[in-house]
Amino acid sequence: MERPYVLGLDFGSLSARALLMDTRTGTETASAVFDYPHGVMDRALPDGMPLPADTALQHPQDYLDALCTLTRAVLDRAGIAPDSIAGVTLDFTASTPLVLNDEGVPLCFLPEFRGEPHAYVKMWKHHAAQAPAERITALAAEYDPHMLDAYSGRVSSEWLIPKLLQILEEAPEVYRAAARFAESGDWIVRTLTGVDCSSTNMAGYKALWRPGIGYPDRAFLETLNPAFADAADKLAHDIRPVGVCAGYVTETAAEMTGLAPGTPVGVSIIDAHAAYPAAGVTQNGKLMMIVGTSNCCLTTADTETGAPGVFCVRDGILPGVYGYEAGQACFGDHFDWFCKHQVPASYTAAAEAAGVSIHTYLSELAAKKKPGETGLLALDWWNGVRTDLMDERLHGVMLGMTLATKPEDQYRALMEGCAFGTRVVLDSYRHAGIVIDEGFACGGIAKKNPQLLQILSDVLGIPLHIAATDQAGALGCAMWAAVMSGIFPTLKDAAAVMVRPPIRTHRPDRANSAVYDRIYALYRELHDSMGKENSILRRLSALRQ
Amino acid sequence: MERPYVLGLDFGSLSARALLMDTRTGTETASAVFDYPHGVMDRALPDGMPLPADTALQHPQDYLDALCTLTRAVLDRAGIAPDSIAGVTLDFTASTPLVLNDEGVPLCFLPEFRGEPHAYVKMWKHHAAQAPAERITALAAEYDPHMLDAYSGRVSSEWLIPKLLQILEEAPEVYRAAARFAESGDWIVRTLTGVDCSSTNMAGYKALWRPGIGYPDRAFLETLNPAFADAADKLAHDIRPVGVCAGYVTETAAEMTGLAPGTPVGVSIIDAHAAYPAAGVTQNGKLMMIVGTSNCCLTTADTETGAPGVFCVRDGILPGVYGYEAGQACFGDHFDWFCKHQVPASYTAAAEAAGVSIHTYLSELAAKKKPGETGLLALDWWNGVRTDLMDERLHGVMLGMTLATKPEDQYRALMEGCAFGTRVVLDSYRHAGIVIDEGFACGGIAKKNPQLLQILSDVLGIPLHIAATDQAGALGCAMWAAVMSGIFPTLKDAAAVMVRPPIRTHRPDRANSAVYDRIYALYRELHDSMGKENSILRRLSALRQ
Repeated sequence: MERPYVLGLDFGSLSARALLMDTRTGTETASAVFDYPHGVMDRALPDGMPLPADTALQHPQDYLDALCTLTRAVLDRAGIAPDSIAGVTLDFTASTPLVLNDEGVPLCFLPEFRGEPHAYVKMWKHHAAQAPAERITALAAEYDPHMLDAYSGRVSSEWLIPKLLQILEEAPEVYRAAARFAESGDWIVRTLTGVDCSSTNMAGYKALWRPGIGYPDRAFLETLNPAFADAADKLAHDIRPVGVCAGYVTETAAEMTGLAPGTPVGVSIIDAHAAYPAAGVTQNGKLMMIVGTSNCCLTTADTETGAPGVFCVRDGILPGVYGYEAGQACFGDHFDWFCKHQVPASYTAAAEAAGVSIHTYLSELAAKKKPGETGLLALDWWNGVRTDLMDERLHGVMLGMTLATKPEDQYRALMEGCAFGTRVVLDSYRHAGIVIDEGFACGGIAKKNPQLLQILSDVLGIPLHIAATDQAGALGCAMWAAVMSGIFPTLKDAAAVMVRPPIRTHRPDRANSAVYDRIYALYRELHDSMGKENSILRRLSALRQ
Repeated sequence: MERPYVLGLDFGSLSARALLMDTRTGTETASAVFDYPHGVMDRALPDGMPLPADTALQHPQDYLDALCTLTRAVLDRAGIAPDSIAGVTLDFTASTPLVLNDEGVPLCFLPEFRGEPHAYVKMWKHHAAQAPAERITALAAEYDPHMLDAYSGRVSSEWLIPKLLQILEEAPEVYRAAARFAESGDWIVRTLTGVDCSSTNMAGYKALWRPGIGYPDRAFLETLNPAFADAADKLAHDIRPVGVCAGYVTETAAEMTGLAPGTPVGVSIIDAHAAYPAAGVTQNGKLMMIVGTSNCCLTTADTETGAPGVFCVRDGILPGVYGYEAGQACFGDHFDWFCKHQVPASYTAAAEAAGVSIHTYLSELAAKKKPGETGLLALDWWNGVRTDLMDERLHGVMLGMTLATKPEDQYRALMEGCAFGTRVVLDSYRHAGIVIDEGFACGGIAKKNPQLLQILSDVLGIPLHIAATDQAGALGCAMWAAVMSGIFPTLKDAAAVMVRPPIRTHRPDRANSAVYDRIYALYRELHDSMGKENSILRRLSALRQ
């Protein structure tokens, strides 16, 4: 074996990571992290120009700097020859569109657009395209009742097309000057290979692209806005299945990055989806949870079906099967919010004295309670609802407080509420005919909070395996690179060598599960009551506007 | 005028207060406070014997010590002759029953009962008689459908008869040894005068005594328990209207207290009700709120009607009219709970740096928000619901939390929730045909929290006057003593001299009231939904048991 190494690159929201793996042993050879110097620009551009509400931009120079610094860092740390790397695959947050000129240069690099917010990258959590998203949803329902079947009937403001429509309508000169629109992940692939393509994963989940049909058609786009008719023409039309090769490192890119010219580069993958195989999940009927601030719940199946708040893309996660994505808009964020705003000084002091984080302190106190003992019930909607109600204007609820309620009771109620929210996801999958008998989890919370994961297992009634890796996205990319370059014939073979066994498995406690079945029935009822049209919660939210 | 002074004595839950007033000027001549040495005994008797859950006892020696210390203290501080006091009236928490031998000595004073919990005073908040209370309610419905008309159809565990039934069934030897059962307030009157009587106020609100009918009859009591047949025989049967004279200070009592023999003593009054005239309210159609940990909402009317969670007693508050009591089980307690359990260190530090209490700090931040701006809605049920649902097993609810919700938002939601709860009381009065156009408030919160009182005025849509006195109970008693002893012909005349003008008046802001009308509609809907039979909240509470 002449080229035993593979490189995975994981471009996240605040930093990027590189993971160089040795495919002979399945072990890490080197890794590196790079924090984006500009971070998230949500208040001002680099020149100080203030930004409007709900705006979240990034600077593409950060991505280039991450790419070059990380590749050189791992090569350097590993002390290996660049041409011993068999392949590179990268993942990226999405949708994070860039506007490019015809040479593929971001418009914000050009002096005339430096002070123009719309010339920068719009992050996935840029929410200022809410109005365009609602117009696209409404028009789709009229224009083609099946257009949004795979997307649960609704276009999110986080996706590509609403963001492009926002650019056209708020900065028409930027829209006109753009020869191409590209996902940042695809732009990095283009930077490495010169090839202008996208993946079924990126285009399918984020750009309303459907196999055999393509992007929304010219007539549809024109109806949204006559000047929007050419929007799809400016997107990549070479859409390749997840996992395959996009092209080869060019001489120019080799000089920039230190990689060997000719090294194969895979098509880009959405970051959460890249994590899918990193826990060893390569077959249908398993749940893969990426548990962080939010919770992304992935699975695959042989058939295409729909359910509220569930997105389905063929070849989207694994080739040859339908990839399903669902999840919760708020998971770990609940606990960060709680610890920031709701925990008295006596608790923070006690946690400090015990030498543990406030999360660990509260989780351990909360774990001493029995299911139902707190008398509390929470709807985990602090950041809206993704699956199944798809509404960011629905907010959190807590029932049952008394004068004896303590912070650990409410912390536990939030843990249970999050677990019930995950059960709604499983119910939605079941509703779509997908039966899940086992779960895998990665992400910071999965490793650090065994109490929460045990509650999750008890509430879901299935075993949950905690992935060993701390770098699920980068490892998944490395596995794809190993398959793409022919080191392993299938992802399953790659997993056999490259994935370590779970560090922990939580199995449901039968007695707890029985109590949770009863509380979940109440959660479900509260969910239906607060989620229905014109509910008290919806009218309260409307009053606030 | 030879006897220009009157003395009001106010026996509260943790301390007693005396107020000596000069009726010529309407000013305070002297006052004193006495903290009960034994406080609330809810964990153990003085000998260390542990007490069961929901038990809350007091030691009657504390009351005697308070009486003697306070009377001597005010005489001493004022430097007046005892016989210049025209009359004494006292109020007391209720129902706080004592078991006495035939000389009126509390059984707990006798060596053989010293270690027996049931020989001590049961405080109003002793909640261990819940089961007897439920049996009495159920039997009353069968036995005489009108027996509980004035009590909204339900007997509270805080009242007298359930507490006596608990004594019989848990300590029959104490029940048998008791020659008399007495409210502690009536026992202090007996100690001063030798007269064994009660008031329409005490007996009417707390002992199911009805004018022209009396206590529940022998057959009813016998059905509860054959040995309970004589329960009413052991109670006072000399029931006098509120405000009248019970008797005169005896030689023995004069020696104990320093009061002059022959000084007139009024019948005892429930503490919250004694406060009624202290804001100058002496006519029908006004609301008097005693706003503390809970909120007691009193009014009077010429007619007798019923409404859920409203109690009506003829001559109960003012003579010649029907006295109405309703209220909220939890008011200020919400804010104490919140500040103890939900406020982060950064806020407590900021309040300290600003030199204000955490309540003031949060109230001022909360007051900057507009109605509806927080997006939150709370049901003020942290300690159950009194008016109108009468259920202590219903608990608190909060809707609308997001990741941007701050402590002051939730503090404001609790303020608004409390105000909506008071509006439910007003609605209940309106339902009973009593229209209220103006309110008066006394109690610590009324004086200290102008932000909360303004929200109350905005939500209720009526002006609220804040009473000047810090000692509403003792002042009300002093006013009654002045009328009883003939210094003033009516309470209205007493008020003209003895009540200072309100220190503050809050008038509803029309624009705020209009928004609150809309939010109150949501509160009411949530109240109905959570309060209905078998609601999610009720089933959640049942699951906890």
